Amino acid sequence: MKLSKTLPIVAALTALPTMGLAQDAEILPVTAEVGFIFNTFMFLVAGFLVFWMAAGFAMLEAGLVRSKNVAMQLTKNIALFSLAAIAYYLIGYNLMYPGDGWSIDGILGAFSTAGLEPVGMEEASPDLTYASVGSDFFFQLMFCATTASIVSGTLAERIKLWPFLFFVIALTAFIYPIQASWKWGGGFLDGMGFQDFAGSTVVHSVGGWAALAGALILGPRIGKYKEGRTVPFMGSNLPLATLGTFILWLGWFGFNGGSQLYMNTAGHVGDISRIFANTNTAAAGGAVAALILTQLLYKKVDLTMVLNGALAGLVSITAEPLTPSLGAATLIGAVGGVIVVFAVPFLDKLKIDDVVGAIPVHLMAGIWGTIAVVFTNSAASIGVQLYSILVVGVFTFAVSGVIWFVLKAIVGIRVSEEDEVMGLDMAELGMEAYPEFTN
Amino acid sequence: MKLSKTLPIVAALTALPTMGLAQDAEILPVTAEVGFIFNTFMFLVAGFLVFWMAAGFAMLEAGLVRSKNVAMQLTKNIALFSLAAIAYYLIGYNLMYPGDGWSIDGILGAFSTAGLEPVGMEEASPDLTYASVGSDFFFQLMFCATTASIVSGTLAERIKLWPFLFFVIALTAFIYPIQASWKWGGGFLDGMGFQDFAGSTVVHSVGGWAALAGALILGPRIGKYKEGRTVPFMGSNLPLATLGTFILWLGWFGFNGGSQLYMNTAGHVGDISRIFANTNTAAAGGAVAALILTQLLYKKVDLTMVLNGALAGLVSITAEPLTPSLGAATLIGAVGGVIVVFAVPFLDKLKIDDVVGAIPVHLMAGIWGTIAVVFTNSAASIGVQLYSILVVGVFTFAVSGVIWFVLKAIVGIRVSEEDEVMGLDMAELGMEAYPEFTN
Amino acid sequence: MKLSKTLPIVAALTALPTMGLAQDAEILPVTAEVGFIFNTFMFLVAGFLVFWMAAGFAMLEAGLVRSKNVAMQLTKNIALFSLAAIAYYLIGYNLMYPGDGWSIDGILGAFSTAGLEPVGMEEASPDLTYASVGSDFFFQLMFCATTASIVSGTLAERIKLWPFLFFVIALTAFIYPIQASWKWGGGFLDGMGFQDFAGSTVVHSVGGWAALAGALILGPRIGKYKEGRTVPFMGSNLPLATLGTFILWLGWFGFNGGSQLYMNTAGHVGDISRIFANTNTAAAGGAVAALILTQLLYKKVDLTMVLNGALAGLVSITAEPLTPSLGAATLIGAVGGVIVVFAVPFLDKLKIDDVVGAIPVHLMAGIWGTIAVVFTNSAASIGVQLYSILVVGVFTFAVSGVIWFVLKAIVGIRVSEEDEVMGLDMAELGMEAYPEFTN
Repeated sequence: MKLSKTLPIVAALTALPTMGLAQDAEILPVTAEVGFIFNTFMFLVAGFLVFWMAAGFAMLEAGLVRSKNVAMQLTKNIALFSLAAIAYYLIGYNLMYPGDGWSIDGILGAFSTAGLEPVGMEEASPDLTYASVGSDFFFQLMFCATTASIVSGTLAERIKLWPFLFFVIALTAFIYPIQASWKWGGGFLDGMGFQDFAGSTVVHSVGGWAALAGALILGPRIGKYKEGRTVPFMGSNLPLATLGTFILWLGWFGFNGGSQLYMNTAGHVGDISRIFANTNTAAAGGAVAALILTQLLYKKVDLTMVLNGALAGLVSITAEPLTPSLGAATLIGAVGGVIVVFAVPFLDKLKIDDVVGAIPVHLMAGIWGTIAVVFTNSAASIGVQLYSILVVGVFTFAVSGVIWFVLKAIVGIRVSEEDEVMGLDMAELGMEAYPEFTN
Repeated sequence: MKLSKTLPIVAALTALPTMGLAQDAEILPVTAEVGFIFNTFMFLVAGFLVFWMAAGFAMLEAGLVRSKNVAMQLTKNIALFSLAAIAYYLIGYNLMYPGDGWSIDGILGAFSTAGLEPVGMEEASPDLTYASVGSDFFFQLMFCATTASIVSGTLAERIKLWPFLFFVIALTAFIYPIQASWKWGGGFLDGMGFQDFAGSTVVHSVGGWAALAGALILGPRIGKYKEGRTVPFMGSNLPLATLGTFILWLGWFGFNGGSQLYMNTAGHVGDISRIFANTNTAAAGGAVAALILTQLLYKKVDLTMVLNGALAGLVSITAEPLTPSLGAATLIGAVGGVIVVFAVPFLDKLKIDDVVGAIPVHLMAGIWGTIAVVFTNSAASIGVQLYSILVVGVFTFAVSGVIWFVLKAIVGIRVSEEDEVMGLDMAELGMEAYPEFTN
Repeated sequence: MKLSKTLPIVAALTALPTMGLAQDAEILPVTAEVGFIFNTFMFLVAGFLVFWMAAGFAMLEAGLVRSKNVAMQLTKNIALFSLAAIAYYLIGYNLMYPGDGWSIDGILGAFSTAGLEPVGMEEASPDLTYASVGSDFFFQLMFCATTASIVSGTLAERIKLWPFLFFVIALTAFIYPIQASWKWGGGFLDGMGFQDFAGSTVVHSVGGWAALAGALILGPRIGKYKEGRTVPFMGSNLPLATLGTFILWLGWFGFNGGSQLYMNTAGHVGDISRIFANTNTAAAGGAVAALILTQLLYKKVDLTMVLNGALAGLVSITAEPLTPSLGAATLIGAVGGVIVVFAVPFLDKLKIDDVVGAIPVHLMAGIWGTIAVVFTNSAASIGVQLYSILVVGVFTFAVSGVIWFVLKAIVGIRVSEEDEVMGLDMAELGMEAYPEFTN
């Protein structure tokens, strides 16, 4: 920012020895290989930002559970990411991109493990119009893992470790990739014109539906609903929850920005800029809406609502972060924040115990965001959007429900009453997250 | 690092099929569109790093306040960033870049909301010598928000939430953009030759002046100064404060590096490299200076001084991170660290209660850094630097003072004595940051 | 991810006004200057990721020590990074790259301070086939600092601050750069064909050997080994330790990816993609191995083992993150995780007190990773790998041992018994990390 924006670039260029072809150069577009490098590097940067969201979920959830369950929540988060990485590599990735339309080849391919391009691209003919397979795999994997992260928060403080991890494998190897293929693998929802840019439905609502099915079958925590009223269980560490929110907000620039898929033209990089700006302002809109609304409703600002408001703003803009103006993006995010403020007590009224508010944030704001696409993207039809939300929802909820039900019947998914009262950390892990701080 | 640095690049190039024009290629400079992509992507990466500084301030401040005020400090930080994002979009951005010199058009434009380039650059004629508007907006917005983050630390533990947030809106919609336009909008300070590469004055001292005005009008915390001596109020969570410092240090690479504004030539990217290296070593210099000095003065190292020393080093190099050698940058940062060690007790002597040390770090080291430009950048004149520091300082301090004063007169800016003793978390929010850890 | 991957890029390109030379453009390779910008920017991005690892070590270690030693551990971490930055700039960097083979010029040059290219590359002839000196220095510096970070964890809770910091200076100015020059400075190990892509040996085992020498000379913490059994000392804050692990995992993408050194061709960026994907899956493999193994061995999952398992997976893949397939990388990482689960109790049996498990993670998994290169990289010979591990190990262990021994003899390296029992925070710093949380 050392100079005003009108600094003539020529001054800088003259510092270079090779100017003979400058006139020609100015009319040359990006060459294919340069474009390939741009696309690939963009996926890697966006991918590591989305990886970072795994830490964000871990911190958010560790901050919002009670201290007796913190070590378990951390264990679940690092384990779920690791298992998702392997399951998606072994099965999910190919299942999601079946290639030539679920032919026999496609189906067989879906069960082969993901493979990368050869070292140095030797003897390969990379598609220079796109990006390297490795960068695409890396980026897509992070989305799959995000879906699993959403589930762990809702079911915290009472679900057994290993059945939960088994569900994670099913979700990341099969449920997520199959439904994602319907849109991003060029499947029937994509064919119908379903618009879901970075996954309000394909990622966030899927995590939310899977969590909802689990919450219904698992039941609420002991003591949460007593004599018709909801007992507040306070999060043990709000700085961690806030840190988690900031991490997620940061990671979301990669989540939405990387979903542009290309950065090899001025048009594409300009679009990524739009997406960054819209993503940020939607989060701000969600946070401010929750800030003002909790002040008006309860006469006190509620920090956890503001955090979830920001996250709901982010989920809301995820289905279409490109086409809105900054003003529209702010409003779309703000509606997400409003949804959260009303949905959290509403779920409690239904005695659906969602420890961190993942269902309001990821499912409800995800549905809202998917619908809101129609306001700014003329390619979207409200009918197709609603139909797609429904199809993905019914599929995910039904399959998840069956898996949770079977797990419950065979091995049990809930810890014993004593273990839950004692806390999962001592009961299941034999350690404490903060051995010196609590009584 | 797999090979020594003299690996012939030709070996790698031969792996590619298209080599026919290699000889020509080596003398071709960067084409305009490729340069546009480089500049824009650089802004996005630098911008997300500066965004991350918002989390750094939140953690630093949450770690340095007492536990009874932590949830409030977190609330202020996420709320101030969100409000800054919206205020800068609605008013600040255009106000900061008035275009054709504050003509009627410029003034009207300043009150229009920021707009992005169209999707896909369709029918747009982007200025391919610079970067996309969205990326520039995203980057500049983060600087504006940083200014507000600086204020919240100084005034912690006693200021009411909503008057503080009102001030944030005034700061980010008006005060910051107006004075920033004098330098970065091509205004009169820029015309005089004022040098402030990434904002030791324009960002950091402005935050510091606004905080100082607030601290004077708000007064010190109850019990801080008793019978002529200063009572130490210990930060409740030093790992959080340390994390916050590391986050800020990381974000500063984007803050200073991105302020190069261009990455479309070897000269520019080389300059960004210089800036990264200098920024890092200035922080190290500041930390080491505070480490050694507190050992010498107090016979014990003071961790919070080391943290603030690193931050002061960063602020000190911000006015000119490009021209110094590594050695000069280290020394400039080290002087910043020394300033902090002396300035913190000095402010206490004046009974100016700055909870996290933001005035020493951002205002005093900011002034030092702005002066230090003259040692390495021959374009800087000491007279102009001092004049600019003064003009920005008087403007910011005066306008901030008036706003704080009016807020105090109309709605009050300080919580009641009981509320302050109880802690803002329970008093204003009705929640605790660590409900299970403290008595 | 808005569209399936076969979206024709032409659609996007047509949005641009300048298409006349598109046909020619597609066969043009990357020009030299564009390649220089790619390489340099890649180093800066990878470098800031590796910088971030310093925060990861700080959080990991702060979480794994007892609360009475947390402020000291934080102080050591920020101080060691700062001192490493200055020592590497003053001495280490030139020592590591002696240029023309340790001639008199090279030796003299080794003791000159590192210098950057001139501003704007004015009158410079940058090597456009590589990257800017500043970016290379920035990147290499972070590796040097990582080595020092490894040491601080092992020796926590009993070593004096200043002798530790003196060792850090010796390590980062001399020990690390000298042995690193044998491989990365084009020295004799490189000449023999030693393969260590990103430093399983050169960085991680060196940190481990230095830590081991220190641990042996320093002795175990009071009360750690009693009557033939090991007393578990629980980490005070497992969310911090988990956060530190996630930070390290994130930073490792830069650590391994940036070690490709080039991003100026499709082949190079494709390789970086492979490295990102392999690095991630190796970490996942290590975490899952520790997860399953601790369940099988102890009937309870051990979170700290899972965290260290992930880190061991990362160290294991660091010697060769490029050539393995995803499956091989997962297995290489998994073996790292297994090593940690067995090595931690094994060290305790030997009464070597390694507070955070840095020796199993960085030394043992580092050796494993260096050996494992031979499975996937045909350029590696098992003999040379073992010889290099030995040479680097003997050198580092011996020189470190001498320095620790001399420090012990002259100034003492261990705090007094009372100070250790009281905790280093109050004894050496006079402050507490969590003054309100513990009794």
